Amino acid sequence: MNLPAHGANPAHLYEKINLAQPAQIFDFSVNTNPYGSPPSLKEKWNEWFGAVSDYPDPEGRSLTQLLARQNDVMPDQVLLGNGAAEVIQFLGQLIQGKRVVIVQPAFSEYETACRAYGCEVDFVSIDEGVESIVEVAKEAAALFICTPNNPTGLLFQSDDLLHILDQLQGSSCLVIIDEAFYDFAGSFTYATYLSNYPQLVILRSLTKMYAIAGLRIGYALASETIIKRLARFRPQWNVNALALLAAETALLDSTFVQTSRQWIQEEREQMFEFLEKTGFHFTRSSVNFYLLRDPNLSDQRPLLEFLLKKGFVLRHTYNYPTLNGRWLRAAVKTKEENDQLKEALLAWKQHN
Amino acid sequence: MNLPAHGANPAHLYEKINLAQPAQIFDFSVNTNPYGSPPSLKEKWNEWFGAVSDYPDPEGRSLTQLLARQNDVMPDQVLLGNGAAEVIQFLGQLIQGKRVVIVQPAFSEYETACRAYGCEVDFVSIDEGVESIVEVAKEAAALFICTPNNPTGLLFQSDDLLHILDQLQGSSCLVIIDEAFYDFAGSFTYATYLSNYPQLVILRSLTKMYAIAGLRIGYALASETIIKRLARFRPQWNVNALALLAAETALLDSTFVQTSRQWIQEEREQMFEFLEKTGFHFTRSSVNFYLLRDPNLSDQRPLLEFLLKKGFVLRHTYNYPTLNGRWLRAAVKTKEENDQLKEALLAWKQHN
Repeated sequence: MNLPAHGANPAHLYEKINLAQPAQIFDFSVNTNPYGSPPSLKEKWNEWFGAVSDYPDPEGRSLTQLLARQNDVMPDQVLLGNGAAEVIQFLGQLIQGKRVVIVQPAFSEYETACRAYGCEVDFVSIDEGVESIVEVAKEAAALFICTPNNPTGLLFQSDDLLHILDQLQGSSCLVIIDEAFYDFAGSFTYATYLSNYPQLVILRSLTKMYAIAGLRIGYALASETIIKRLARFRPQWNVNALALLAAETALLDSTFVQTSRQWIQEEREQMFEFLEKTGFHFTRSSVNFYLLRDPNLSDQRPLLEFLLKKGFVLRHTYNYPTLNGRWLRAAVKTKEENDQLKEALLAWKQHN
Repeated sequence: MNLPAHGANPAHLYEKINLAQPAQIFDFSVNTNPYGSPPSLKEKWNEWFGAVSDYPDPEGRSLTQLLARQNDVMPDQVLLGNGAAEVIQFLGQLIQGKRVVIVQPAFSEYETACRAYGCEVDFVSIDEGVESIVEVAKEAAALFICTPNNPTGLLFQSDDLLHILDQLQGSSCLVIIDEAFYDFAGSFTYATYLSNYPQLVILRSLTKMYAIAGLRIGYALASETIIKRLARFRPQWNVNALALLAAETALLDSTFVQTSRQWIQEEREQMFEFLEKTGFHFTRSSVNFYLLRDPNLSDQRPLLEFLLKKGFVLRHTYNYPTLNGRWLRAAVKTKEENDQLKEALLAWKQHN
């Protein structure tokens, strides 16, 4: 089942699955803001050309300070990365050769990065419950938890997660909470607990909400000690000048996040209503994507291919242990695009 | 002597050296093309805004294929990096914990990256001669050679370098030749010897000649085996979409490199004539920067500070073993800027 390990690359998927690509494609495998980037980025784009030629500030000090202020931490508790993917790579290096535990399902890059650095990787399903997670993690070097979860869109119960943090207090297990999609769900963040739990690492991405995946920018929040250890692995000038400028501009837009969240929530609810009515199963996601399945199929590949032929690209779940292709991930997109997906799903229902 | 480890960041230097920054600054510490980036980049800048929101091709296939074609190697002999600095970081990981040899003087990032991964780092001065370099390197895991050299601008004799490659043939020592500035000197490249020497790694930057340091893009050329081992350390989507677009456009400009080289050569020769006449020592550089010194001073700090006060920012050499502040590095810039530097150097001569 040699399919691409990530979404947002439709041509690659059609090629791998050996299907002709239709003229018009609707990429529901992507998971960035369907309304695009803040308008201020386009407005400033021309004046940013000058930044192409100069080396970026190697420390990204201005953006680091802004993130520190907005997250109520000290600047030396912030580490910028060339996308969150690079920060995950730094974490892999930090725990190199040790045992790590990943709460499944989860973004596949944790496993890839940890294995690249010779870690022993154990999985625990979120369904096994909090005590099982604590039990498996307490002798490990790191525990990865993705909430809001990619790919389900579900939130980890905060009481449960705080209980895990309490139980692992004093162990040498880093608790890495990936909040790449936290701002799609609301304003709650585990970053407020950084001073309570010295083992806590918060991972963030700026490319999802602000739709700047092409520019690459993510960051970690943690104790000064952990940030200093991670920073040893950082190449010079790792964040490019455009990413620094766009991130800073986007973060200063005071209404963009809330407006986006509201639009997406409305669209998501209408989609859920449709899925319920038409008999699809789905996850009650809090963010800009969700899982869906036709309950009459175990492996969803026929549905995936049916949609691909019509130009609708959903994300397979073969490389998510515990999901194994039994679900498809779909983005919440604009009203027009969601309506077209609804039609395609109706067509599937009528023929199956 | 806590000065910044790199050039191209004047504000940081003034701050560290505790000098007020004059209103007008001439940054001679930078080492990118003084004529800026190819005009085609500015022309296309607007249409590239769309690339901000989409994930870049994780493999950068189109650019990789172009580089393979232009360098007469196979695409799987090319590895793209988020600047050459990231590729150096991958090399540090590959040779982690082992002994490496750096021919000095050299770009400081080799040492920084190797030490970050626990390597034992030995230096050998280029003045010790070829047989000494072979002797020190033959039991090492890697030998770093920078030619055209940063910071001297001098070329390593190709007979000598080929002799080193011959002598290390069959040992387990990687020979890493950093050609970040090769296109400023001419069209000669050690990449043509890749099929003869399986241990050879060529490092390249696209940010110097094409003046796109803000975008971050560099690459390695090596055997398929070495590239595969390095690629394990590569984060997903490590090269941003704008860097891919700009690099591809720049590499297809058929006259830019030659024109830039010619302009820079003319300016460099006029500068050398001036330095000779006024009694400064300098290196007979083949590229867009050179070393200079006042032979009446051992440590050049008084000259560095004299120029800084007038707004001319040169690059100190305190963190280059074998140079230790006895030289300053200056960029070849536009005629107007070079003339202004000449005036400042004359003023120094008149007062010293």
